[in-house]
Amino acid sequence: MKALVFDVFGTVVDWRSGVARDVAHLLGPDIDAGAFADAWRARYVPSMDRVRHGKRPWAGLDTLHRESLDELLVEFDRAGVDEATRTELVLAWHRLDPWPDSVAGLARLKERFVIATLSNGNVSLLVDMARYARLPWDAVLSAELFGHYKPDAQVYDGAAALLGATPDETVMVAAHVDDLAAARARGLHTAYVHRPDEKGPAGIPAATDPDADVSVDTLVALADHLEC
Amino acid sequence: MKALVFDVFGTVVDWRSGVARDVAHLLGPDIDAGAFADAWRARYVPSMDRVRHGKRPWAGLDTLHRESLDELLVEFDRAGVDEATRTELVLAWHRLDPWPDSVAGLARLKERFVIATLSNGNVSLLVDMARYARLPWDAVLSAELFGHYKPDAQVYDGAAALLGATPDETVMVAAHVDDLAAARARGLHTAYVHRPDEKGPAGIPAATDPDADVSVDTLVALADHLEC
Repeated sequence: MKALVFDVFGTVVDWRSGVARDVAHLLGPDIDAGAFADAWRARYVPSMDRVRHGKRPWAGLDTLHRESLDELLVEFDRAGVDEATRTELVLAWHRLDPWPDSVAGLARLKERFVIATLSNGNVSLLVDMARYARLPWDAVLSAELFGHYKPDAQVYDGAAALLGATPDETVMVAAHVDDLAAARARGLHTAYVHRPDEKGPAGIPAATDPDADVSVDTLVALADHLEC
Repeated sequence: MKALVFDVFGTVVDWRSGVARDVAHLLGPDIDAGAFADAWRARYVPSMDRVRHGKRPWAGLDTLHRESLDELLVEFDRAGVDEATRTELVLAWHRLDPWPDSVAGLARLKERFVIATLSNGNVSLLVDMARYARLPWDAVLSAELFGHYKPDAQVYDGAAALLGATPDETVMVAAHVDDLAAARARGLHTAYVHRPDEKGPAGIPAATDPDADVSVDTLVALADHLEC
């Protein structure tokens, strides 16, 4: 095993609290900030699917987030929100807090393995987030580099190749079973991280992924498991 | 100004000493290790030019280094060197020491700016080097991501775009005037670093680049200049 690649939103950082915090700050106390964050995230997969299925040319996640936001502001009766506030809201996705175990776990895993993002977030989003949350990545890999969003095969194949590893020397780490299933289909090893608080009232995900090589509750536990 | 992108070989790390050290170690004391390192590096630009001018499809720097090595071993009367030693020699380019000021300078620059590699080295080479030399990059950007080698315009344009910066918000930092000239032609700002020891007996480069925005002797001096 040479390299660990990480899903980021939900696996390493808490997108829901971070986005809700900025929504409350920028749109005021009258809005249900948690519901707004959930509605924004609900548009995430459909917006990428339009790119994945060739219904539009490549567009980075900042662009998709902005388009979803514009629709949501109408839906939440805030169509008058100004341009500067919209720009600032999109940047909420760049400054998300890590889960309490993330930084310590990554630091230990880095001692023994190359650690890289493998996220649908664009590169500049991931760089801003790493600086904000002090995430010690060796490399910032993104769907943007491949012109394909996860779970397209090109993303998993391309990440291993860029890191000079075979798929069999690479582990995908994620809190989402569909991401892990797609990585396994390309020959990567997989580690499931249980993040019960990721989705708020949308429910708690399963505690383990029986198809993954390992299921853990924290990145510190993953470091323990991998003897880092 | 948002982002600084760095040439690496010669600007941040001392390739000649590092390669010569491994050549001496792996090929024995009877070889002129400095001359071998110089001859290897002399094939660097011509090998990339064959890709740049469409005479062959894309090949990463590890591949180009290996092909040059195979030729050099014949030239240096070492055609019998085994496969494992050749592989190890190519990896010499992954473990190069930083110049004495590099790590301290980068750490200060990172406090205020996004710092990223912008090297012709492949991503896995740059990741290995960053881990070996403790270079605190925010992102590892490489010619490999663009399928073009410097000084092709795509590399400079692509780096700024991935970092979410305009060319005018980006500074190219390099010890080589041709790299800086190509960056300027794409609208980037430029900082020249004088590295008198880079090339050994091949000679000492000019102390300053009059066309650059600034010329410095160390990355610490660059941090001073940029008030980091």
